[in-house]
Amino acid sequence: MMRTATAFAPATVGNVGVGFDLLGHAMVSVGDRVTVTRLERRTVVVHCDSMTVPEDPATNTASAGLLRLIQDLNLSFGFDVVLEKGIPLGSGMGGSAASAAGAILAASRLLDEPISETELLRYGMIGESVATGSFHPDNLAPCLLGGLVLALGKDPLEVIRIPVPEALHCVVVHPKLRLDTRDARAVLPSHVRVPDFVTQAGMLAGVIAGCYTNDLGLVGRWLQDMIVEPHRGPLVKGFANVKDAALDGGALGCSLSGSGPSLFAWCDGKAAGERVRDRMVAAFAESGVESRGWVSPVSAPGARIEHEE
Amino acid sequence: MMRTATAFAPATVGNVGVGFDLLGHAMVSVGDRVTVTRLERRTVVVHCDSMTVPEDPATNTASAGLLRLIQDLNLSFGFDVVLEKGIPLGSGMGGSAASAAGAILAASRLLDEPISETELLRYGMIGESVATGSFHPDNLAPCLLGGLVLALGKDPLEVIRIPVPEALHCVVVHPKLRLDTRDARAVLPSHVRVPDFVTQAGMLAGVIAGCYTNDLGLVGRWLQDMIVEPHRGPLVKGFANVKDAALDGGALGCSLSGSGPSLFAWCDGKAAGERVRDRMVAAFAESGVESRGWVSPVSAPGARIEHEE
Repeated sequence: MMRTATAFAPATVGNVGVGFDLLGHAMVSVGDRVTVTRLERRTVVVHCDSMTVPEDPATNTASAGLLRLIQDLNLSFGFDVVLEKGIPLGSGMGGSAASAAGAILAASRLLDEPISETELLRYGMIGESVATGSFHPDNLAPCLLGGLVLALGKDPLEVIRIPVPEALHCVVVHPKLRLDTRDARAVLPSHVRVPDFVTQAGMLAGVIAGCYTNDLGLVGRWLQDMIVEPHRGPLVKGFANVKDAALDGGALGCSLSGSGPSLFAWCDGKAAGERVRDRMVAAFAESGVESRGWVSPVSAPGARIEHEE
Repeated sequence: MMRTATAFAPATVGNVGVGFDLLGHAMVSVGDRVTVTRLERRTVVVHCDSMTVPEDPATNTASAGLLRLIQDLNLSFGFDVVLEKGIPLGSGMGGSAASAAGAILAASRLLDEPISETELLRYGMIGESVATGSFHPDNLAPCLLGGLVLALGKDPLEVIRIPVPEALHCVVVHPKLRLDTRDARAVLPSHVRVPDFVTQAGMLAGVIAGCYTNDLGLVGRWLQDMIVEPHRGPLVKGFANVKDAALDGGALGCSLSGSGPSLFAWCDGKAAGERVRDRMVAAFAESGVESRGWVSPVSAPGARIEHEE
């Protein structure tokens, strides 16, 4: 039986412009690392390299799901959780989902009986909802499963893996501006006009059809956010310039990653992604904002065990 | 050169519950028949077997597109149009789209130079928008193209053929109740709540994913209309009972066809469709409403030329 396991859980792009609260995908090379060790006591202890993450296990995104797991499975033991945040806090890159996903995945390796993927998702969501105050699986599901995931419903949650065109790459650029998820939710409208609802739902359907048919032209014609971006974009200094730079550089589409302030841009190929990333970083710099960018295939793998013993 | 052509244009199910103003599909065995003959004069003359269809060519759905065609192509000749309405008027079965599609398809055979599918759609939409007072391609596009079609945008219109699981059949039941498209639009809300927008957009995406992956279970879990049906359903006497009868009979989903009063139900297989149709007709009868039902593969063919000389 394993006593300790370390999971790497990737950053994710939630919403993806067209799929507010529904669609998300994983990124490579940036993520959180979570080491979970069995404790004799029925409790959860959290240690974190970042002082601004709450260490109270009931409100920490990495541990809230584990507390529930102990209760539900009536475990006789507990967990020590060490959280190494690789994802910038409040960046819109799915950091809370990654901590929750990494913790439940690592903890699942220490159980006497394995739990299903559905259970991993469920306990991960418990952690994630502690952090965001509401239930939105568009980061958690792709973080656990990898690739591009459409997450529908709540109870039960249905996750649908959308096939990803091989050439599809994603740029994420993180400006050194902090934007709290709750603040970003506060500017959302409560209602949308019916014609805008129709147009935006059609855009989601068009992008999904483009993914199934490997048609990046189709993806590029409809990868737009008419509902949320007009409200959240202005919260990010330089947003319009950076988006213009991405589209001028050939991006298929560009919008906020999750609730921002990071932006994502989908591109046809890795080279295009690197060019677009450089333009976006330069455009932030022109607005006086320091930023950092990553390029990843959209078909990036999900959370995985790096080490166990 | 052809002097006369007769087109058959099928009935269609618009909206399909999840895709308000976006998604539609063709039906077999019920449709309009449109015979177009070249005239020496640069004009359009309409004859119709139904007295309640306007015979003024500028406001008739079958001829308004042809008038524009004469102008745009600067034709030296005109068209005589004979319209045989096989689709009940005001039924929500895409009758105005079928007349428009049949007319433009037949007229296109009489031109000296062929026109493209895009142009057929464009002129068909001109006719259709005369009838409905607005631009909604969810009947016209599947009527011309056949099968299940997602129609996005306006100028240009993008039509996406969604692959249809072979077993997927559609029941349409038409009650002898007339509901005008404009009246049905009047009860629509102007806005939707953001959480409902998210849920409904996700349902559309889920159904489309189910079609691409031939997963009727997935289709059945998400084929629901939360936005429009609550407002329009109550306009149709017996709606709730007929819908319950369809779902109890094993339908994957059931809602209004277009703006009603007809209902559609998607079913897994032809036999299930026939069983569901009988239950729906019986449920209408219990509400004192006479009705007629059809069963068709969702992959029904689009408008076609039946005869030309």
